[in-house]
Amino acid sequence: MKDANLTNFWITEIHQKNTATSFRVKKTLFTGKSQFQQIDIIETEDHGLMLLNDGIIMLCERDEFAYHEMIAHVPLFVHPNPQNVLIIGGGDGGTSREVLRHDTVKRVVLVEIDRMVVDACKEYMPSLSCAMDDPRLNIIIDDGVRYVADTDDTFDLVIVDSTDPIGPAEPLFNETFYRNTSKILSSEGILISQAESPFYDVNIQKIMLKNQRSSFEKLYMYLFSNLTYPGGLWSFGFATNTLCPLKHFDPDRVKNSRISFRYYNHNIHRAAFSLPTFVADNLKGILDIPSKKS
Amino acid sequence: MKDANLTNFWITEIHQKNTATSFRVKKTLFTGKSQFQQIDIIETEDHGLMLLNDGIIMLCERDEFAYHEMIAHVPLFVHPNPQNVLIIGGGDGGTSREVLRHDTVKRVVLVEIDRMVVDACKEYMPSLSCAMDDPRLNIIIDDGVRYVADTDDTFDLVIVDSTDPIGPAEPLFNETFYRNTSKILSSEGILISQAESPFYDVNIQKIMLKNQRSSFEKLYMYLFSNLTYPGGLWSFGFATNTLCPLKHFDPDRVKNSRISFRYYNHNIHRAAFSLPTFVADNLKGILDIPSKKS
Repeated sequence: MKDANLTNFWITEIHQKNTATSFRVKKTLFTGKSQFQQIDIIETEDHGLMLLNDGIIMLCERDEFAYHEMIAHVPLFVHPNPQNVLIIGGGDGGTSREVLRHDTVKRVVLVEIDRMVVDACKEYMPSLSCAMDDPRLNIIIDDGVRYVADTDDTFDLVIVDSTDPIGPAEPLFNETFYRNTSKILSSEGILISQAESPFYDVNIQKIMLKNQRSSFEKLYMYLFSNLTYPGGLWSFGFATNTLCPLKHFDPDRVKNSRISFRYYNHNIHRAAFSLPTFVADNLKGILDIPSKKS
Repeated sequence: MKDANLTNFWITEIHQKNTATSFRVKKTLFTGKSQFQQIDIIETEDHGLMLLNDGIIMLCERDEFAYHEMIAHVPLFVHPNPQNVLIIGGGDGGTSREVLRHDTVKRVVLVEIDRMVVDACKEYMPSLSCAMDDPRLNIIIDDGVRYVADTDDTFDLVIVDSTDPIGPAEPLFNETFYRNTSKILSSEGILISQAESPFYDVNIQKIMLKNQRSSFEKLYMYLFSNLTYPGGLWSFGFATNTLCPLKHFDPDRVKNSRISFRYYNHNIHRAAFSLPTFVADNLKGILDIPSKKS
């Protein structure tokens, strides 16, 4: 007799051939094939809803707060007055949800290449897409690479909320894209980019960070932990021409904001820029080291 | 025709029924059943050798430096003059390897309940057990609970390098054990204990930390990331009657030490005590918050 107490339906993500992470699945809520990729939204047993692009886990509800708070609040609390924000990717809505919690922000442009991601998340993942009706948000379905090359707008913050550098996201990691991004930033502007795993993706990190390096005066990296990405520890790049993420950070702004956080806080802001020795060694010569005095 | 380029032999650890982590295996080097547990040492495809107790992953070579550096160097660089160190568990040798890199340390007592762990790691995992012949190290095969209750010795640092609170390690998490530990610490003594996952094990953390709380004036927690434990983010408890891990920490001692680190450094020391908001909230009222000024 079989034991039917638990489903035996698992989503298993194999990473670099030799490791895998699996989550038990309750059921599939949405499955569709866009012109760019396969998109699935599934309900897991204890990690909430999960979004997959081409079978790769993008996020799940249980821990997405870590990624989205850290991609948004770290630069927003460094820039003295962030008003205009551009998000490349992020069609799920999690990053714009966090950005829009800042009262200084007057306008967010979200450029997502795949309309099906936006539509599916709007319908099935309201905990992510809940801020998509904010009148300050303008969702453009377009190629982010082309948008950045063509736009005449200027932004205080550009967030590259991308998938891995394969498939539609690949051009988001190259030198031309970063150069074009630097041209649309205001003088104190910041570029934040999803920068992969410090344990598993050192080669990708080196390429993408070197590609950024030539278009920006300063390039830092910060870390956070989540449950969804291989190894748990994950990184963002922080590129800028003027601002230092520690020297120009005022913890009182965080303490006095009325935003409630689940991951971010003023101590985590500073701690996130402290890199384990092997991470700093792997990226020596590419990254700048922030300091309160720098 | 089958594809034989990669073995399809995996070690899969299922965690709390609904998540799993898997590593591809090359071969088994050792398998044995002691009076306490099943012990396996396997060679993985790209995480090096791996030690398993009762099928639960204890460590692997690729990332054990994170765990062992953080369990050892954080307290050793806070205590002003650590000479006598007691390690409960840690039969693999990784923790004593790091402790013995400090010249101040005159004597390390390692109390491991299971002789087979020590013997197997000595034979098959020299990268872990390489310091086991250091004349300052005294390995005692005994029950750590009984040792702590009976010994007349005093220690500057006690490290509980234990498995989860099931099976032989269960009594290492209760109030009597912590009370007995506090009695064998010198006046500036520190107790470090493996304190599970902030994402997955909040209930265990609350019980074990409350059990420590009543025997110590101060109780802190610090975090690190690895690849081997579920979720990647992991914690240690730091219990003491006098020392604050930030106020009594001098970064110059780290910079001037001749120890080479792969994970630890003076920035990571401070950053590790910065807790994500959900971690601090989960343990509010149980933990103290360290400060440079406290």
